[in-house]
Amino acid sequence: MRRVQASELNSHMGERVKISGWVHNLRLLGKANFMIVRDASGLAQVFLSGSEREQVTGLLPETVLEVVGSVVAEPQARGGVELHEPEIAVLSPVTEGLPFPINKPELEPQIETFLNHAPLGLRHPIKQATFRLSAGIMAGYRKALDRIGFVEIASPKIVESATESGANVFAIDYFGRPAFLAQSPQFYKQIMVGVFERVYEVAPVFRAEPHATIRHVNEYVSLDAEFGFIRDHTDVMRVLTRVIRAILMHVQEQQAPALASLQVEMPLAPETFPHVYFPDAQQLIFERYGEDCRGEPDLAPQHERWLGEWAKEKHGSDFLFVTGYPTAKRPFYTHPNPADLRYSNSFDLLFRGTELVTGGQRLHHYEDYLAAMEARAMDPAPFQSYLEAFRYGMPPHGGFAIGLERGADIT
Amino acid sequence: MRRVQASELNSHMGERVKISGWVHNLRLLGKANFMIVRDASGLAQVFLSGSEREQVTGLLPETVLEVVGSVVAEPQARGGVELHEPEIAVLSPVTEGLPFPINKPELEPQIETFLNHAPLGLRHPIKQATFRLSAGIMAGYRKALDRIGFVEIASPKIVESATESGANVFAIDYFGRPAFLAQSPQFYKQIMVGVFERVYEVAPVFRAEPHATIRHVNEYVSLDAEFGFIRDHTDVMRVLTRVIRAILMHVQEQQAPALASLQVEMPLAPETFPHVYFPDAQQLIFERYGEDCRGEPDLAPQHERWLGEWAKEKHGSDFLFVTGYPTAKRPFYTHPNPADLRYSNSFDLLFRGTELVTGGQRLHHYEDYLAAMEARAMDPAPFQSYLEAFRYGMPPHGGFAIGLERGADIT
Repeated sequence: MRRVQASELNSHMGERVKISGWVHNLRLLGKANFMIVRDASGLAQVFLSGSEREQVTGLLPETVLEVVGSVVAEPQARGGVELHEPEIAVLSPVTEGLPFPINKPELEPQIETFLNHAPLGLRHPIKQATFRLSAGIMAGYRKALDRIGFVEIASPKIVESATESGANVFAIDYFGRPAFLAQSPQFYKQIMVGVFERVYEVAPVFRAEPHATIRHVNEYVSLDAEFGFIRDHTDVMRVLTRVIRAILMHVQEQQAPALASLQVEMPLAPETFPHVYFPDAQQLIFERYGEDCRGEPDLAPQHERWLGEWAKEKHGSDFLFVTGYPTAKRPFYTHPNPADLRYSNSFDLLFRGTELVTGGQRLHHYEDYLAAMEARAMDPAPFQSYLEAFRYGMPPHGGFAIGLERGADIT
Repeated sequence: MRRVQASELNSHMGERVKISGWVHNLRLLGKANFMIVRDASGLAQVFLSGSEREQVTGLLPETVLEVVGSVVAEPQARGGVELHEPEIAVLSPVTEGLPFPINKPELEPQIETFLNHAPLGLRHPIKQATFRLSAGIMAGYRKALDRIGFVEIASPKIVESATESGANVFAIDYFGRPAFLAQSPQFYKQIMVGVFERVYEVAPVFRAEPHATIRHVNEYVSLDAEFGFIRDHTDVMRVLTRVIRAILMHVQEQQAPALASLQVEMPLAPETFPHVYFPDAQQLIFERYGEDCRGEPDLAPQHERWLGEWAKEKHGSDFLFVTGYPTAKRPFYTHPNPADLRYSNSFDLLFRGTELVTGGQRLHHYEDYLAAMEARAMDPAPFQSYLEAFRYGMPPHGGFAIGLERGADIT
């Protein structure tokens, strides 16, 4: 007998069908007994009369089984149907109780207990919804960039030189030579602009932040894009805006149940996101909130929250570009503002007052790279391969990187 | 003036347009001079009269520039058009000759020279075609699995326990604790079958093979899939066949120019790929080729080539499944053939006589894992987290992994 998904039962009314899945819940009340079976599509209710009850006696939650039954309309049941006269076959028995329930609306355990039992905990509907949302963001991202001629790349993750400062790099022993786990595909994606003009990648990056648990924060999926023949960073901001809006559209269309179960309030994302120049943002904070951060080299989290508040009130947007971060605080490859070299053609995209995306225009002349590295007392020797791209002709270009975990926060 | 792509020039006949790109070639013949400009879409020919010639004098290959010119029909030129009366603006000058040409049909340098100048060498049309094909394979793979309800996952790459034997694992220092770079998402994708039933991933994996150069072979993109509620490995073979055929269809539709420039002979891929059981394959080799490998635990490369030859002649297929590899030679999670435990419910998919994909049915009962590990003298302690998935109910399941680089070989 061919298997039917739990969510499709209501189109098999009156038929005898087979479902397969996990024992999500048992409600044994005596005369009327119910077993809830979970599969990837959702939940199905199985009705067991008093005499049929023995079939499920002793079955523990998460037991994997097949149920053949007759589909009967039942307005009280999820989806309006339940299975009657079941014949049950266990595929994989479970012989011990779960360390925590996964059939409650809330995921109860503390983070440490959860991590110790992740293979089980990941099955909780809330976790499932989070994963589906991440999958939807990746798919929406690719779709948006495929549509405008970007080529997908797969950059090396074991690299000879670290992208940023050496502070939070994982070193590995590469057959006796030093090597690192890539903190970002920054160098490679710039090199590939010389090949395809427009490239993107969806892949893990690695940051050695000692406070994190294994599997978390020290690696995350980065949604990277880089493209050439731009005028300046505002072209990058335009593409990014389009991509963000496309992602939101995609998850609304494809992941509506996940958004609903996570009780997501969809963001305000106008066709053009507001933007504010870094020193103007500091002036605005001073005038509106009375705190004088003018001249400071960076924004504090509270400053970003205030700016997010302002963007929402003034522009009806949960997104705000802050442009022109001080050149000295940005990586060496950042293109300065030609009109005022203290500031850069870079941006952060704030979402509800927190940084969501970093991007900007990069240097494209070889001698500008040498000068920028000299100004930062960096030795160009380990970067020879990367710098070769600029010796052999690179167009004006820029790009951005969205952390997938942060991307999931837009929801 | 808005930029026009090189490949679109013929739809702007008679107009004055701007193209942007790299100096691919200069042919300075005196009265008639030509510059070939390359952009991501292809090549464009710029005609310079004797008096216009000075504009390009001294420009070295790979210089990035913009050319404004008039589109004129010219049957001799690529695409039937060329630009006349050009005005040229250099965006990024190049001041030194290239270490090797990239405007010849063949990529000339030896591998070592190429790797030393990869940022340049990757721009060669042959390399571009290879990358586009890889991008097409990734896209075709995702499309095929999205269509049948697989959920995309992103597994951790820094892991606490190695998947396979410890021989070729990259160890990293994880804040004083031992950790490894994932050799495959095998454990994680099985765990996620407990969540979504059907999952796939496209992501890097790491193998410490000391003979390789940095950036190659030690890491590659693995196209992984895993799914539950199968009867046995033949269900996995059916899905894999469908996926391979969908990838071939996708690259034929989307990457025709890359296939043409790489002179790819598309594979013979019948609707059902032939299959042969491991001991039968050995018998076949004995009878057909006179070499007696019956009873040996594995197939040598020459054996696989013979089988590939046989599959093509007998079944008109470049693909051949070899099933039932000896259980002892497969990883501990491999499901044995219930009818003959010496052999397993696993397979290799050979393509033109070389292994392209490995897959099979996995164990799904917790006690079977413990027994399999004991039989191999493995300590289950480091695998506790993984094994928990089986303690809490896993359906019969299986999957496969395609190496992207090998996938690109199907062409």
